[in-house]
Amino acid sequence: MFYVILYDITKDRLRGKIAKVLGNYGLQRIQYSAFLGNLKKHQLSSLQTKIQDLLHHKKPENEERKNVQIYPIPQYSWKNKQVIDNSHSTAEVKSVQKAEEKKGKTPELI
Amino acid sequence: MFYVILYDITKDRLRGKIAKVLGNYGLQRIQYSAFLGNLKKHQLSSLQTKIQDLLHHKKPENEERKNVQIYPIPQYSWKNKQVIDNSHSTAEVKSVQKAEEKKGKTPELI
Repeated sequence: MFYVILYDITKDRLRGKIAKVLGNYGLQRIQYSAFLGNLKKHQLSSLQTKIQDLLHHKKPENEERKNVQIYPIPQYSWKNKQVIDNSHSTAEVKSVQKAEEKKGKTPELI
Repeated sequence: MFYVILYDITKDRLRGKIAKVLGNYGLQRIQYSAFLGNLKKHQLSSLQTKIQDLLHHKKPENEERKNVQIYPIPQYSWKNKQVIDNSHSTAEVKSVQKAEEKKGKTPELI
C-alpha cells in the first residue's frame, strides 16, 4: 500500500531524525516535511513504532509540536496530484528531488 | 472529491496567505502546513488559480521554497489515517484543531 506521511516537528534535530528514518524505509521525499512511498504491513508497523519512540523519547517543551500523520492512498492519488511550484532552482526541495532521481527512484513519484 | 493539500513555503507572509485561502475554501487544517477537505471541481480549479497567482506574484529569492501539492484522496485515506503526536498541549496544531471543532467542522477529519 502507498502512504503519504506528513510531519510537523518544531525541533530541527528530531525533524532530521524522522526524515532519516522515513528515507531508510525507501520512502521518497516529496516536500520538506512530507514523504511518499510503498510500505508492506510489517514495514508500516515497525515504522510506526520507531516514530512513536522518537516522538515520545522526551517530554514536549512549551509550544513544541511533534506531530506525524500517515495516510494510506491509492495510486490515483499520487498519479493525479497537482504540483504548483515557484521555488528558487537551488532550493532544497528541488535538490532533494534531483538526488532521489539520481539514486534511480521512480521519478513519477515526485 | 476529498483533497489533501501540503505546502512548503519559506516566507511567513506568503505561507499565511496560502493558509488563509485554504481556510476560505472550507478546508480543515490538519497540520501546520497541511489542509484536508472536500472540493467541487470548479472550487478546485479556482483554488489552483489563486495558489498559482500567489506563488508566481514575485520571483523567488535565493533558496526560497514555494511549493504546493494537491492530492485527491478517497474517504478511506483519512478515515484510516494514523496520527502520532506528542506536542505540548498549547502548541499551535492542537489550538488550531480546537478552533476548528468549535466552528462545528467535522471532528473526525482531524
